[in-house]
Parts: sequence; structure tokens; C-alpha cells
Amino acid sequence: MHVEHIGIAVKNCQDANQLFAKLLGSEPYKAEKVESEAVNTSFFQVGNTKIELLEATAEHSAIAKFIEKRGEGIHHIAFEVKDIYAEMERLKAEGFQLLNEAPKRGADNKLVCFVHPKSANGVLVELCQEIKE
Amino acid sequence: MHVEHIGIAVKNCQDANQLFAKLLGSEPYKAEKVESEAVNTSFFQVGNTKIELLEATAEHSAIAKFIEKRGEGIHHIAFEVKDIYAEMERLKAEGFQLLNEAPKRGADNKLVCFVHPKSANGVLVELCQEIKE
Repeated sequence: MHVEHIGIAVKNCQDANQLFAKLLGSEPYKAEKVESEAVNTSFFQVGNTKIELLEATAEHSAIAKFIEKRGEGIHHIAFEVKDIYAEMERLKAEGFQLLNEAPKRGADNKLVCFVHPKSANGVLVELCQEIKE
Repeated sequence: MHVEHIGIAVKNCQDANQLFAKLLGSEPYKAEKVESEAVNTSFFQVGNTKIELLEATAEHSAIAKFIEKRGEGIHHIAFEVKDIYAEMERLKAEGFQLLNEAPKRGADNKLVCFVHPKSANGVLVELCQEIKE
């Protein structure tokens, strides 16, 4: 398991790209629209972890709701796992509440599953696994 | 630069240790009290990043104030830098607002400096550098 990325909710990806480029001293290497989540994303590489900026593209987006409630800021931590199905079973058995019953397709060619923050000390946890095709 | 750790504000370190041990599938490897910040901390290793749990030991602790305002959750991201003094100068020149003028001693044998979340898209950013003695 390792920290694959940290997701940050931003109001405007273009503005945030400029700010994070200054902060991290490097440019974003990728931008991707994820229709299913109603978000625009952009990615910075920092060591072997990524910073993922998330901008809502619609009012129903979870990112729009997050920003409305809490303002911009750190949204989630994503842990890469080798077998997301096995890890979901393990966490369910440990009493964690998963936000989706089956892995779904996320940004960056990944299968993803979220753990409810209520069952993880207020932290929105993402499990992710690279899709190999 | 790499993500040295992610700080998580918790009400009770002992309870959170148990929960994160289940989540991460590993035990915390260290606990440390940081008097200057009025916090108890504990650390989990996840790949080459750490998860740092932070529990307030006094009402004036920044962690107590954070939890009162926002509840438990992700508190900060810490980036390890090679030269914290140079990095502080660089960020100041880029317009970031630093929360301390000089590096201070933090947990885990580190010199640390914080960037104000208002100047970093709502993200509390820590710069840190290992103290070599």
C-alpha cells in the first residue's frame, strides 16, 4: 500500500494549476475530465505521490458540495492497493463503511472505491488500483 | 520534494491508532509528544509516506481549534525539502504567506514551517527538513 495521490478540491483548476505550480516548483503533467464524477482534474507529480486538483463541472458534483460546505482544501487521500476487491472485503469485515459496493472507474485509468469519512475519523479514503488492459 | 507525511487531526490518539491500524493493515511505529505544539502524535508508515495522527493535549492547541471548527479529518500535507531556508525564501518571493518567519522544531526530528492555507487554496502546507546533528 502506498499514498497514490492526495485530492484537493479547488474552485477553478486553471487558477489552482498556477498556484500549485509555484508551490511545488513543477507544472501539472496531465489534465482529465471525469464525466461520471462531474469533475475536471489535473495532476502534479511529487516524488512517487501525485497531487490531484479537482474542480466541479456541475452543481451536483461531490466537489461542488464539499466546497460549499467547507471551502477549498484537502478532499481525500488515495491509497493504491494490489487487489481492490480483496481490500474492499477486508475493510468491510473490519467494520468500515464503503461508499460503493463495487469498484468504479475513476480518473487516471484507475478502479476506485471510497470509504465513508464517518467510519475513518473524518477522512475520505480512496482505494485505487491501476486498470491493466 | 516528496510528500513526507499527511497530518490527520483526531480526538483521541489511542482510538484512532486502532482504527488506522485496521485501515492501513499495519501498526503505528512511533508515538511522540510535541510540547511546543501541545499535541500527541503517532506515526504509520505507508510506502515512503507517513500518516501522522495528531491529538490536542490542551485547549489552545491548533488541533483542538481545528476539530472544534471542522471536526476530525485531514489537517495538513507535509513536503520534505532539501533546504528549508531556501524553500521559504522561494515561496515568500512567489507570494505565499508563511506562518512562521524562521523554521521551528516539529515532531519526528524535523525543522518545519507552515504556509497559510489562505495563500494555498485552503490547504495547510508544511515544509519539513530532517535535522542532522
